[in-house]
Amino acid sequence: MSAAKPAVSVLGLGMMGSALAAALLKAGYPITVWNRTAAKTGPLVAQGAAPAADVAEAVEAGELLVLTLTANDAVRELLEPLADRLRGRTIANLTNGTPAQARELAAFAAEHGARYLDGGIMASPQMIAGPHAYIYYSGDQEAFGEYEDTFRVLGGARYVGEDAGRAAVHDFALLIGMYGQGIGTMHAFALAKAVGIPAKEIAEPLRDWLNAMALYIMEEAEALDSGEHLTDVSSLAVNQAALPNLLNTLAGEGVTTEFFQPLERLIDRAVEEGYGADGLSRLPDLLTPRR
Amino acid sequence: MSAAKPAVSVLGLGMMGSALAAALLKAGYPITVWNRTAAKTGPLVAQGAAPAADVAEAVEAGELLVLTLTANDAVRELLEPLADRLRGRTIANLTNGTPAQARELAAFAAEHGARYLDGGIMASPQMIAGPHAYIYYSGDQEAFGEYEDTFRVLGGARYVGEDAGRAAVHDFALLIGMYGQGIGTMHAFALAKAVGIPAKEIAEPLRDWLNAMALYIMEEAEALDSGEHLTDVSSLAVNQAALPNLLNTLAGEGVTTEFFQPLERLIDRAVEEGYGADGLSRLPDLLTPRR
Repeated sequence: MSAAKPAVSVLGLGMMGSALAAALLKAGYPITVWNRTAAKTGPLVAQGAAPAADVAEAVEAGELLVLTLTANDAVRELLEPLADRLRGRTIANLTNGTPAQARELAAFAAEHGARYLDGGIMASPQMIAGPHAYIYYSGDQEAFGEYEDTFRVLGGARYVGEDAGRAAVHDFALLIGMYGQGIGTMHAFALAKAVGIPAKEIAEPLRDWLNAMALYIMEEAEALDSGEHLTDVSSLAVNQAALPNLLNTLAGEGVTTEFFQPLERLIDRAVEEGYGADGLSRLPDLLTPRR
Repeated sequence: MSAAKPAVSVLGLGMMGSALAAALLKAGYPITVWNRTAAKTGPLVAQGAAPAADVAEAVEAGELLVLTLTANDAVRELLEPLADRLRGRTIANLTNGTPAQARELAAFAAEHGARYLDGGIMASPQMIAGPHAYIYYSGDQEAFGEYEDTFRVLGGARYVGEDAGRAAVHDFALLIGMYGQGIGTMHAFALAKAVGIPAKEIAEPLRDWLNAMALYIMEEAEALDSGEHLTDVSSLAVNQAALPNLLNTLAGEGVTTEFFQPLERLIDRAVEEGYGADGLSRLPDLLTPRR
């Protein structure tokens, strides 16, 4: 690579793809854009992007291909007919997908002489190129090094390993964490509303409380890695005593308890197995029954 | 009340009760302490507390009775035989319990000429009297006003209404939020560990990500209170498409998906009912099937 900015083609112009293309354009990169429905290229062309007449033209125009489609099945379908044109190019596939799909796409790319990076975007489209956005990358390390400056335009660039599936694992770990937090939040709101408390009244205390509790994540990780789970903060036995009160109150106000029944069962099982004096850090290992 | 510091009796000296008594002692309050097993009074007596020989003596000694027992059943059992001695006293019951139990205890206190406040402590014992600790209070407003300075020694004092059960609702809303966050965190760790990533490697990104996502709680509350759920960030339809990938990946790595199956069903139902373009703020109202 020369010091000149590489030609990048952005394929897929949903909200995320459009945000990525706009950020690269703003940073002065020569950008070609393509989308299945061509209308979406309009705003980006107005910002200086070259519209590709078809996918083949987009692949031709970019040494780096950035993909954000709806799903990895669509990525495979899109690239398969163009396999012969991929040689020498680098694919940065930022489409949401599973680790297994990422590995398959990496193998497909390798077969056709292309380098493959898979990415997990830890940001909303609105956050792209902002101070809190970052993207996990995994796969071809040389390609990552070569385009790192380009990737940094979009936000932080965190390379997590040669296994192409690794970025998706990091991505999914954070996403499942977020869904759990979302489950908690919606039950907090449901309980408040059920007794006539406006959501607004608990939103700020809830946010502050969750942020305060998130501080324990670091301790929990240490406990997990070391296997030393004894706690003087909140033992499983204490949680076993407290949770039924909480669930009875939800039920009493007409809020479903089904989202928390698996937790109740898990804590019961953990205490039964002799872990009552341990902290909640004991639980992750009990979620993998096969092991 | 005169400007002199009121005599406070602290009943129940688990980790939390001991922390409360210690904070009050440090602030110069005349404190009497009682615990079912008397040994626990030792450290507090060393700090200047008067040990009560029995519960009756503790009730006698304090115009304000602060209770942190293991459960509200124990509070009732403890006070019932002493009902005749409660007249003129203020009970601040900070024991974990349900809103219904709080209301029953308030009625019991009123019947015997005592004023009742129920409290939900939003802090670990280690946080008491620190800048981030606070306690929700509900019940007798006059009593709250009279002892507010005393309560402020323990942390922030937030009075949330005459209904004695209200503090527990606020408390429980935050606690259920925390349990949801805990469900998310433990699955994030379980997935990482299943593929050989140490917990330590994802702890900090996970904490930062959850904090970033918690910022949306304010928007979600506004959407909930206004009933306007349309979003340009993350629609239910987008989540419906994304969640199965996530759960298949968990399952593929041997991590149970049962904690997230209710969420998958709820989102399916919401989309079926025509809410696909709405944000996640649509969901809390769907958790109360009776309404």
